[in-house]
Amino acid sequence: MLIDGLQCGHFNREVFETLVRGGVHCVTSTLGFWEGTVESMESIGHWRDMEREHGDLFFIARTAEDIESAPSRGKVAILLGYQNAALFEGRIAFVELFADLGVRVVQLTYNNQNDLGGSCYETEDSGLARFGREVIREMNRVGMVVDCSHVGDRTTLDAINWSEQPIAITHANAASVFPHKRNKTDPVLAALKEKGGVIGCAAYRNIAPQTANESLRGWCEMVARTVDLAGVDHVGIGTDYSHNHGPADYDWMRKGRWTRTVQYGAGSAANPGPTPKPEWIKTVDKLSTVQGGLIDVGFSADEADKLVGGNWLRLYRQVFAAAGR
Amino acid sequence: MLIDGLQCGHFNREVFETLVRGGVHCVTSTLGFWEGTVESMESIGHWRDMEREHGDLFFIARTAEDIESAPSRGKVAILLGYQNAALFEGRIAFVELFADLGVRVVQLTYNNQNDLGGSCYETEDSGLARFGREVIREMNRVGMVVDCSHVGDRTTLDAINWSEQPIAITHANAASVFPHKRNKTDPVLAALKEKGGVIGCAAYRNIAPQTANESLRGWCEMVARTVDLAGVDHVGIGTDYSHNHGPADYDWMRKGRWTRTVQYGAGSAANPGPTPKPEWIKTVDKLSTVQGGLIDVGFSADEADKLVGGNWLRLYRQVFAAAGR
Repeated sequence: MLIDGLQCGHFNREVFETLVRGGVHCVTSTLGFWEGTVESMESIGHWRDMEREHGDLFFIARTAEDIESAPSRGKVAILLGYQNAALFEGRIAFVELFADLGVRVVQLTYNNQNDLGGSCYETEDSGLARFGREVIREMNRVGMVVDCSHVGDRTTLDAINWSEQPIAITHANAASVFPHKRNKTDPVLAALKEKGGVIGCAAYRNIAPQTANESLRGWCEMVARTVDLAGVDHVGIGTDYSHNHGPADYDWMRKGRWTRTVQYGAGSAANPGPTPKPEWIKTVDKLSTVQGGLIDVGFSADEADKLVGGNWLRLYRQVFAAAGR
Repeated sequence: MLIDGLQCGHFNREVFETLVRGGVHCVTSTLGFWEGTVESMESIGHWRDMEREHGDLFFIARTAEDIESAPSRGKVAILLGYQNAALFEGRIAFVELFADLGVRVVQLTYNNQNDLGGSCYETEDSGLARFGREVIREMNRVGMVVDCSHVGDRTTLDAINWSEQPIAITHANAASVFPHKRNKTDPVLAALKEKGGVIGCAAYRNIAPQTANESLRGWCEMVARTVDLAGVDHVGIGTDYSHNHGPADYDWMRKGRWTRTVQYGAGSAANPGPTPKPEWIKTVDKLSTVQGGLIDVGFSADEADKLVGGNWLRLYRQVFAAAGR
């Protein structure tokens, strides 16, 4: 299985064709960043429409079995995800309702503190807040993956400990490999491993070392260093690959409705704009090269299988199983 | 099967106990009148919570098979319904999403004209509007019952003709039996019958003849006159029974957010307030007496079976079947 734990942007027929051509079996798509309940439902409606139009290339997956059926169906399984909990609008009951609508992955918060907890970009990380504890337990109950990629370290550690299911860091790297607020410290990775979670290594220029951006080998070496920290059973792919993103999309992701000032996201004043894709993955079908790249840097075929999808599938199997109970 | 096509108000444990005691197998509950998307989702969340708390007495039904299982389970099957299309907030995609959340009955409009069509209380009934046509076809596709109880005659006739499935008038009476804007003219009942629909006779004092309010026999005689107009295969029960309604509830139902002036709903200046329940149904478990009452006014046992639930079940079977396709 070849699974990417996070992509974002505007999916269309060409994107789905490229994913299928690359043999990608499952992708978690980002349906929202700051959007509330109604806007989030509109995104789901849009994906339903796309599924009706491009059902020959992809399907919306609700179970691990759905994902496992992707290779034989020759389609990519899409997990519906949100990079923020704004879709719940503070209502615990909405977690179950959005699960019913097919949402399978929700990040506790995006770049800002919210009612669930602290963000990696806040000066002070509150830790997991009262509503955050409620939401995590409800996500556990209904079978939704808790994502802490943009979440602050303290809140992430709280979430790992509080959650009854392993959590995901769908798209980030190890901070000791590349220091950045978006990347995860060694204690976070140790706790993630201890509780059975998975981190998806990002192929996003702003949060990866230059070597990882320049070549597949460099990126696979970064994965190897992440495996040294989190273990071969707890690392996967989470490219953060963005499809068809323009300046308005970056403005929305970074500024939402919360500020009128310039925001750089994972960039900086010296590096304010959209960044080019890493050299080795100018098109997303290049994900098909990762398995070989991992073997080239010393992983066995079995280990590479885990890293390119097996670990994600194990996590999905475990977390989604709750939905059937 | 004993099925009530519409009740409203605040359901609680005592209500469910009374329904079970009365051998009522299925009730469509009203989850909203003027509420938009988020508020409507909150109502669904509330019903999910009630189901977890009182699951020994009721369950939320999604299919005709669910309803048919009610007698052997000793519980009442609840269909989630809305008396307005405000929950969709003008978005065609939300019809499918609310169906996914379990909504099975939606009235095209309540007391006022909306983006779907005209109401029985408007001076001018526009007929089915552009969005109304879209919503009906989408409801047909996803397996939702189109309800025209408070809908104007012209829009109702349009809906009957436009819908690919039979429609419901869940809670109204025949206007030729008791003239009232809320009741349905002979041409509407003839068209309803022609297309396989069902009208649920109301046990609501303001829209029924005095005889129907005074005794079970009188109410069953009203049903018999409705059967003369619509046929024995197209009439059911739709009491409009309200549970635990107080003045604030009537204010909300009648005025919503659309006016500051006094509104009487189905009442009048001479009869402004909440009305007492009909004499024969002071408690809702008295629905158990209807079958015998119908036989007493001349129906065969088979005919009475149809009238107390068989006709609703046939309609539900047909309409809900679309959801499985």
